[in-house]
Amino acid sequence: MADSWVNSAERIGADLHLELTGPGGRRAALIQALREAVRGGRLPPGTRLPPYRSLAADLGVARNTVADAYAELVAEGWLTARQGSGTRVALGIAGPTRHAGRTPPKAPPRARGPRHDLRQGTPDASAFPRAAWGTSYRRALQQAPHDAFGPGDPAGRRELREALAEYLARARGVRAEPDRIVICSGFAHALRLLAASGVLRGPLAVEEYGLGFHRDLLAGAGVRTVALPLDEDGARVEELGRERAVLLTPAHQFPTGGPLHASRRAAVIERVRARGGVLLEDDYDGEFRYDRKPLGAVQGLAPEHVIYIGSVSKSLSPALRLGWMVLPERQVAEVLAAKGEREGWASVLDQLSLADFLLCGAYDRHVRRMRQHYRGRRDRLVAALAERAPRIGVTGVAAGLHAVLRLPPGTEASAVKAAVWQGVALDGLSAFRHPAALTPPVDGLVVGYATPAEHAYGAALEALCGVLPPG
Amino acid sequence: MADSWVNSAERIGADLHLELTGPGGRRAALIQALREAVRGGRLPPGTRLPPYRSLAADLGVARNTVADAYAELVAEGWLTARQGSGTRVALGIAGPTRHAGRTPPKAPPRARGPRHDLRQGTPDASAFPRAAWGTSYRRALQQAPHDAFGPGDPAGRRELREALAEYLARARGVRAEPDRIVICSGFAHALRLLAASGVLRGPLAVEEYGLGFHRDLLAGAGVRTVALPLDEDGARVEELGRERAVLLTPAHQFPTGGPLHASRRAAVIERVRARGGVLLEDDYDGEFRYDRKPLGAVQGLAPEHVIYIGSVSKSLSPALRLGWMVLPERQVAEVLAAKGEREGWASVLDQLSLADFLLCGAYDRHVRRMRQHYRGRRDRLVAALAERAPRIGVTGVAAGLHAVLRLPPGTEASAVKAAVWQGVALDGLSAFRHPAALTPPVDGLVVGYATPAEHAYGAALEALCGVLPPG
Repeated sequence: MADSWVNSAERIGADLHLELTGPGGRRAALIQALREAVRGGRLPPGTRLPPYRSLAADLGVARNTVADAYAELVAEGWLTARQGSGTRVALGIAGPTRHAGRTPPKAPPRARGPRHDLRQGTPDASAFPRAAWGTSYRRALQQAPHDAFGPGDPAGRRELREALAEYLARARGVRAEPDRIVICSGFAHALRLLAASGVLRGPLAVEEYGLGFHRDLLAGAGVRTVALPLDEDGARVEELGRERAVLLTPAHQFPTGGPLHASRRAAVIERVRARGGVLLEDDYDGEFRYDRKPLGAVQGLAPEHVIYIGSVSKSLSPALRLGWMVLPERQVAEVLAAKGEREGWASVLDQLSLADFLLCGAYDRHVRRMRQHYRGRRDRLVAALAERAPRIGVTGVAAGLHAVLRLPPGTEASAVKAAVWQGVALDGLSAFRHPAALTPPVDGLVVGYATPAEHAYGAALEALCGVLPPG
Repeated sequence: MADSWVNSAERIGADLHLELTGPGGRRAALIQALREAVRGGRLPPGTRLPPYRSLAADLGVARNTVADAYAELVAEGWLTARQGSGTRVALGIAGPTRHAGRTPPKAPPRARGPRHDLRQGTPDASAFPRAAWGTSYRRALQQAPHDAFGPGDPAGRRELREALAEYLARARGVRAEPDRIVICSGFAHALRLLAASGVLRGPLAVEEYGLGFHRDLLAGAGVRTVALPLDEDGARVEELGRERAVLLTPAHQFPTGGPLHASRRAAVIERVRARGGVLLEDDYDGEFRYDRKPLGAVQGLAPEHVIYIGSVSKSLSPALRLGWMVLPERQVAEVLAAKGEREGWASVLDQLSLADFLLCGAYDRHVRRMRQHYRGRRDRLVAALAERAPRIGVTGVAAGLHAVLRLPPGTEASAVKAAVWQGVALDGLSAFRHPAALTPPVDGLVVGYATPAEHAYGAALEALCGVLPPG
């Protein structure tokens, strides 16, 4: 049986939990507990131990007992005592035996990343607007009402929902009201919530190319997906079967890159309206458009039949874990019920910071700056390919953070293999293909040109050109 | 059919999306689109419109077309034009018709809170350490490597896992290695992940009093819960049936308030070890202890048979959405697979801030300060009851942020009703009772004495005493 004490150790600014369990007197038990704490790594080398008086008071033992225990451990070499700096764990004592009796420490789960990272899906992490974001965070922290630090509203902070309603209306043509917005942690969280809420009853039609990660997530949540063929006008929505719900990427089909044609936009709305269904609009990179005249969100055409989903994962950083859904009014309660009364999931301070970041114009400025930045990246990619691999077609480059390189039939697998050998991380187009897709597969590579840091981009392009099939 | 344009409007610092859809010429279509944008609230009163030249270039129309459209709308009163401040949306024009054609705006989903909030489960929101947290956040933002802004490690940032391993070992006696820690958004998220991962196969034994929210969450995830009786030594673990997994609150039974007796700690470990099962240790308020000598975490006794779960929801704020699990080594991969490769869920910047906050000693300082603060609250509660309701027993006050007031049999329901009438928010003990609990129910009130702001606490105590059954 174990008694437990604590050393609140005000003066060393640290809590230390010790259990005096051994046989023999208090002194022996204390020596053993301290020895064990050092051996087990709980007291790392150099840690300052509490003064005798304070530990004695906390443990309910005589001061001399602590003094004796310390002296013994100093004599054994576990501790060192020096005038003016108190008693500390000896340097060098704990290292060799730190993991004694436990499994040896493992290497970090991930090895170093690839030499050239051209995977799609992430913005240039080195371009995060640290200063501007820090300013918004500081303001949010100072100005937040006290209730911001209590249990959160599962819909998200009202300040953010109001700022988003204004921004999405202005920049994306979304008809949003704060009460129809639910803040979440990103697109995947939105999908989970929709699947859990019952909004997605029955099978869900998805584009025949898309993220396998999303299909797996849906399957895990019991939602079966059905593949919708694509052509140069986007998803062939006229081929929708009996599915009442459809997930599309209308602004920039992921990953093939084209916009959904206006006639198709109208057609899909008509379908879901007729069936009492819903369109899930994944506007994952709607802010990044370069050449073509951008399309607003489909949601603006029929707010009561579209669930519009966006996030800051492409525009700012996936590290913030902030996204949003704009819901038809009738589905708000259902989604909030799935979210759970006591869960917010997105950090409230980040929510308030994003509200400030949107309202002060920093978000618009950042998006504009990144649009120029990525347009330059895109231009360099196109120029490099025109020079080094003129027979490789490039598509999907009018918008977004990635391009698709069309390869000669039968060459994708060897190009992907060559990329692995050359340390170039990217995916073949087939990695995004729905297992039940019916149209003939196309060979291609999906190149995320936003991912590398600026200084690394030239070398990444060079390496990319080296793995393409000879033209 | 709709054509779409955008006004990138660099000079006004805002993106504006317009669709020119109407019949008639470009001028008429532009007038209609702008009118609609103002009427629909997308262009709020006072918004500055882009200069003619810039909008004309973006829309691909003649400059005069824009100038004519603006002039027409100024004449109609939608816009105002003033020398030096450009053309703006008229003040007062959009308000009355803003929601025309849509459902009227609803009241905010939650009415104002209760007059006296004594609900359990939250810390004093007014005591969040804004300055110290802001310092840690600023440092984290400045010092974060670029990769922190890319896709996250689903286990959480290594910096935080290392800081937690050190802290939990020191303060809670947890044997943690960074590789066995998984960061999550709080206790509910941890439960969801465990349920989804398959770690909780078969029914889960839970204490007969606990959070109904957790039981519902588990039921929703397909995990059946079985009620374990409680007595003065905590959960009667010797009555465990065939369940291989057990969820307990050993440091401070929630909500009844006692610690799990040492013999029971040993017994539950023996059981789960024998069955190849696992103990889920909910250490929800382990840092807050006042009188009794604290117990370290059970996890320290058998790290390979316990999943230790903690969060900052009580120690700092539930608004941060930060928690952690310390897992047996064999279950790390399973839980990470359930979490999903591309999801972190906890904000990376908050993770890095918490790592800094732990390492610089600010967390220890804050916990100590709050311990004193809540001890004072507890003492005032006990004193008020001794004076005003001496026959009401108070239990569970040696630790934590709440107390249980034992009421005479049959009086709980009327006390809860009286509380509602008096604007006192709190829960009866029966609200926490497992539907299948077997021991006879006890009448009581669960009083969260940490929840009110300092200035409101005295009045809340006064109101509480007023609703108790006459002694």
